[in-house]
Amino acid sequence: MYSASALYDLYESKFSSNNFNSSPDGLYAPVNHIMGIKGKRIRPMLLLMACDMFGGNVQQALNPAFAMEVFHNFTLVHDDIMDNADIRRGVPTVHKKFGVNAGILAGDVMLAYAYKYLTDVPLQYIPQLMQLFNKTAIEIFEGQQMDVDFEKRMDVSLNEYLKMIEYKTSVLLACCLQLGAILGNADEKSAREIYRFGLNLGLSFQIKDDLLDAFGEGEKVGKKIGGDILLNKKTYLLISALNNASSLQQAELQQLMNEIDEQKKIDGIKRLMKETGAYDATVSKAEELYRESIASLQAINQPADRKALLLEMAEKLNSRDY
Amino acid sequence: MYSASALYDLYESKFSSNNFNSSPDGLYAPVNHIMGIKGKRIRPMLLLMACDMFGGNVQQALNPAFAMEVFHNFTLVHDDIMDNADIRRGVPTVHKKFGVNAGILAGDVMLAYAYKYLTDVPLQYIPQLMQLFNKTAIEIFEGQQMDVDFEKRMDVSLNEYLKMIEYKTSVLLACCLQLGAILGNADEKSAREIYRFGLNLGLSFQIKDDLLDAFGEGEKVGKKIGGDILLNKKTYLLISALNNASSLQQAELQQLMNEIDEQKKIDGIKRLMKETGAYDATVSKAEELYRESIASLQAINQPADRKALLLEMAEKLNSRDY
Repeated sequence: MYSASALYDLYESKFSSNNFNSSPDGLYAPVNHIMGIKGKRIRPMLLLMACDMFGGNVQQALNPAFAMEVFHNFTLVHDDIMDNADIRRGVPTVHKKFGVNAGILAGDVMLAYAYKYLTDVPLQYIPQLMQLFNKTAIEIFEGQQMDVDFEKRMDVSLNEYLKMIEYKTSVLLACCLQLGAILGNADEKSAREIYRFGLNLGLSFQIKDDLLDAFGEGEKVGKKIGGDILLNKKTYLLISALNNASSLQQAELQQLMNEIDEQKKIDGIKRLMKETGAYDATVSKAEELYRESIASLQAINQPADRKALLLEMAEKLNSRDY
Repeated sequence: MYSASALYDLYESKFSSNNFNSSPDGLYAPVNHIMGIKGKRIRPMLLLMACDMFGGNVQQALNPAFAMEVFHNFTLVHDDIMDNADIRRGVPTVHKKFGVNAGILAGDVMLAYAYKYLTDVPLQYIPQLMQLFNKTAIEIFEGQQMDVDFEKRMDVSLNEYLKMIEYKTSVLLACCLQLGAILGNADEKSAREIYRFGLNLGLSFQIKDDLLDAFGEGEKVGKKIGGDILLNKKTYLLISALNNASSLQQAELQQLMNEIDEQKKIDGIKRLMKETGAYDATVSKAEELYRESIASLQAINQPADRKALLLEMAEKLNSRDY
């Protein structure tokens, strides 16, 4: 088996350059801009680790691993246009640097490249990989739309919120793991369990992300605290607070959601999130989902030492030590 | 073998509704808006006719045929955003009706559905279909970028122009035909020839389109005559005129390209297109490409009666009687 750093180096050395056609430059400069930002490669690493855990040929899994990184970056390019975001990982977003049209077209070609690399594997794997990835891609676009829809709604339920983050964030992690399992010739039950491992890990991660956005320490989180609160974003925290509030707290929450003084709004809503028990409920939910994800990993029919890398990855994601 | 109308009916009855998930509505309403505009289904028909010509199972080719229609419509949705176009086939464009963000996301999900339907075929065909379509999709995005780039350049050569329209328009027609050939279990030589048939037919069609834009009769063409001329669009016609012009004509052309009076500009440039021989050269080129396309069709190892439908389709496209 490979170590985490060996997998990372294998991936980085193979995909350090020349992964796309070289011209026209107007199309590929934006692609190389976003792909050139070095990240943690969480999705490719999950795919490679899963493949390796089942004893698969990691070399054969490199192209699909890269495909998932390209796909993830494509979603960032188009999402940044839709969110009108200027900065991504400390550098200008693609549309900010190259224009909206260049961002749309660069994203489109990245999606095609994702499919190209995904299917650059021994033929027998292609049908299964395609079926899983197609389903996942469609769910991700549906999740993005739900997120947009929720901005205009006040009656989003916890279940609707969970479905949204499942589609928008978790299914891609789960997909990467299952793609790795397929390439590792895993049995069906294990392929199902590893998918559930990724799904619940992703949900737990996203809910913790919401918690950090409101209750984290600014410096550690790396962004301004309370951003979601200022936008009245329907997170697990806010929905729980609205659900649990007494009629008095309900009225106060509604008033605070229209409050103009930013600090007053953040402090007041955070206080109510604590007082209504929403904070505790959210922490519990994140922990419950994390435990479920680990249970799925444990249910996989492989010896513990083969699962060590994925367990470590899960712990890192859970503790934000990553 | 099927008749053209039987193929059309088969396709229409299968894909009249419920081809996409039903929710979220914000995602699929834009998709259904553009897909609901009834067109000639040129690309699906080419695919089905090719499959049928080689004696393939047309039922198995229906999903890929629909995939090509979805893909084509996806390119229209994103191109219309980039071109800031308000109307498409007489109805509001997707982004005009639903907003730019909805247009971007609807296009994205359509691309995923195109891959989904393309690969909803017996497993043994998937690798070949994927390889051809991926290559084609990437070329189409490159062609779109070339088109954008050419707007800012004055030194576009005829060969560059031909490459651009090949990528932007022709490769999809050629791809549809070759997908049909693959699904019809055609021999390799025939699959190559049918691709060339589509490629040259598409080039000829596009060059005739340029001719009609400048020299057609407004009512027949269905749009304002001289649109390309007003935009100084580097068509085969204009590039030929610039190439063939004497220094005196060269100067006059440059002056006319900056002319503000629209009718004066159109009339003057059309006159110079005739005087420099660009008009004749363009007509000849279109005819030459059409002859080449027919020669490729004839080179396919099938009896003439099996080629009749595709020949008729080519003639219709060539005469614009379609």
